[in-house]
Amino acid sequence: MDLVLTKNAEQLKPAERITPVDHLTELVRDDLTGVNELIVARMSSSVPMIPAVAGYLINAGGKRLRPLITLASAKMCGYTGTDHIKLAATVEFIHTATLLHDDVVDESDLRRGLASANTLWGNQASVLVGDYLFSRSFNLMVEVGNIKILDILSNASSVIAEGEVMQLASTADLNTKLDTYLEIISSKTAALFEAAARVGGVVAGVDKPQEGALIEFGKNLGIAFQLVDDALDYSGKQAALGKTIGDDFREGKITMPVVLAFEKGDEQEKVFWKRVIEADKQEDGDLERAIELMANHRALDATMDLAKDYGRKARLALKELPENAYRDALDGIINFSIERDY
Amino acid sequence: MDLVLTKNAEQLKPAERITPVDHLTELVRDDLTGVNELIVARMSSSVPMIPAVAGYLINAGGKRLRPLITLASAKMCGYTGTDHIKLAATVEFIHTATLLHDDVVDESDLRRGLASANTLWGNQASVLVGDYLFSRSFNLMVEVGNIKILDILSNASSVIAEGEVMQLASTADLNTKLDTYLEIISSKTAALFEAAARVGGVVAGVDKPQEGALIEFGKNLGIAFQLVDDALDYSGKQAALGKTIGDDFREGKITMPVVLAFEKGDEQEKVFWKRVIEADKQEDGDLERAIELMANHRALDATMDLAKDYGRKARLALKELPENAYRDALDGIINFSIERDY
Repeated sequence: MDLVLTKNAEQLKPAERITPVDHLTELVRDDLTGVNELIVARMSSSVPMIPAVAGYLINAGGKRLRPLITLASAKMCGYTGTDHIKLAATVEFIHTATLLHDDVVDESDLRRGLASANTLWGNQASVLVGDYLFSRSFNLMVEVGNIKILDILSNASSVIAEGEVMQLASTADLNTKLDTYLEIISSKTAALFEAAARVGGVVAGVDKPQEGALIEFGKNLGIAFQLVDDALDYSGKQAALGKTIGDDFREGKITMPVVLAFEKGDEQEKVFWKRVIEADKQEDGDLERAIELMANHRALDATMDLAKDYGRKARLALKELPENAYRDALDGIINFSIERDY
Repeated sequence: MDLVLTKNAEQLKPAERITPVDHLTELVRDDLTGVNELIVARMSSSVPMIPAVAGYLINAGGKRLRPLITLASAKMCGYTGTDHIKLAATVEFIHTATLLHDDVVDESDLRRGLASANTLWGNQASVLVGDYLFSRSFNLMVEVGNIKILDILSNASSVIAEGEVMQLASTADLNTKLDTYLEIISSKTAALFEAAARVGGVVAGVDKPQEGALIEFGKNLGIAFQLVDDALDYSGKQAALGKTIGDDFREGKITMPVVLAFEKGDEQEKVFWKRVIEADKQEDGDLERAIELMANHRALDATMDLAKDYGRKARLALKELPENAYRDALDGIINFSIERDY
């Protein structure tokens, strides 16, 4: 194995800008190094296509947010062992497997500004290497040998898959209501944040109330994170950084800003949304028009307000947990998730 | 849930013809009913697309061979509990998830003579419902709560996925040698037969030598089963039943008869194989020509001879295990796997 996990250009930020993710990364540096080494070791295979495809995605500018949450949760709760490293790698493998399959399902050409794995290796490789990573995540958690943790992570996997199917079933369906959409993202995105935080506490042996607090923290952070993702795709903040916007729009994805703008739109606007999202017939200028309608109805602001609500819930839950540097760093992650512009 | 698991027309055989699979099914009838009920219960979801897609495949004429092996292995080894039912359902879920993803990867239109799930619901649904079933298989085995069994099944899942990627990497590659091909089918097919037999014994608490015998039995049976599948796709036996042949050929799949016929072919024949398999340029009459070349080089007979060798190894392993009606029935499954014409 000569694969090295490095940050790529996507991740480089101006040197003076230290984000809460950088801070948390620094705080658990040794453990995170352990996670990265384990990831490289466990995505290896005598079949060269596996580390090629998996490594491409795993190296491609991820922030390692989910494994960072597992590491910090365990440390916050006083854990002194090493199993949290395996659990953090497990969580990253589940996440990566999901990304590989998502790109196939969404027929995405790009992922974080780079060609997606399915563009480079084909859908077939993405499906099968995703399966491999999912199996490997499962091997890793079995090694930890804690039935309660296995139960949490296997349930999270089912909920994620169910959320993905739910999203597929409402693809381009403008009748998707706010509640349904929140249910979809609670499953497909927040379930893994929730499990990531929870298993960190469970491996440290927390009591029931603290476990409940970790669940609330992770779930609400995950929902906030996804809502901000949704808003950024239409946001001037992201455009100002020179990043592409409108990826979700071009894929005809139902996201929170679309749900809100459609709901508030008049008949003429509904015709527009039906053409661009349901009929998937987009023309030049449609993205600009969508952003204008969102602005008129404050759909992006409302999405961000919702994200802030969930962020507050996550912060409240965090207060129930041991006060220390790890908790402060996790609190910073809530801020980051909401204030980020990428 | 009003889904009922029934045999469909595909499975109906002349009434007088009782196969060893029927015999084993009868022997473990109550347990198999339990497996079928559990499958229906666990593939349910509030997302209607999930039971629709999963149920379609699970009802579509499968013989339940793998869960039958788990049930019979457990009983043969004296198991009196009920966990073998969960394990048998687990094995069937892993198998079904693999079939769903296989059809996407192979771009198959048909599965057991019926439209494949991806043809009816699309590749996206097949990928995601496959993920759901795989997660559910994982839930089920966690419920059994036996770390050794979790280890066996999670490793089997990794090996299967690795075998699938290995097969993808050698798609249409006529340089695939006999040993490489055996390695592929040992992983993608035989690993699940092996795990199915092994966990039946482990749940019953067998000793190391018996566990080893179950591994040998399952692995060799799985390899034999796949080789017979390969041969049947070009076989007059299957054609005589009015079943389609040449599915593998039309998909340009490398299977054992192709490996053997290519290896023994002269230059002119190699040109033919390169056109139809590597370049995927097939014309009318090519299937007939392929079958003729296989006949000239005894490629189908040699494939069947190999299958019989593996069948003998499976039978030898079975002799190390407790002698009872279940063992006899499993012995019958070896015969069936080799002598079947469908």
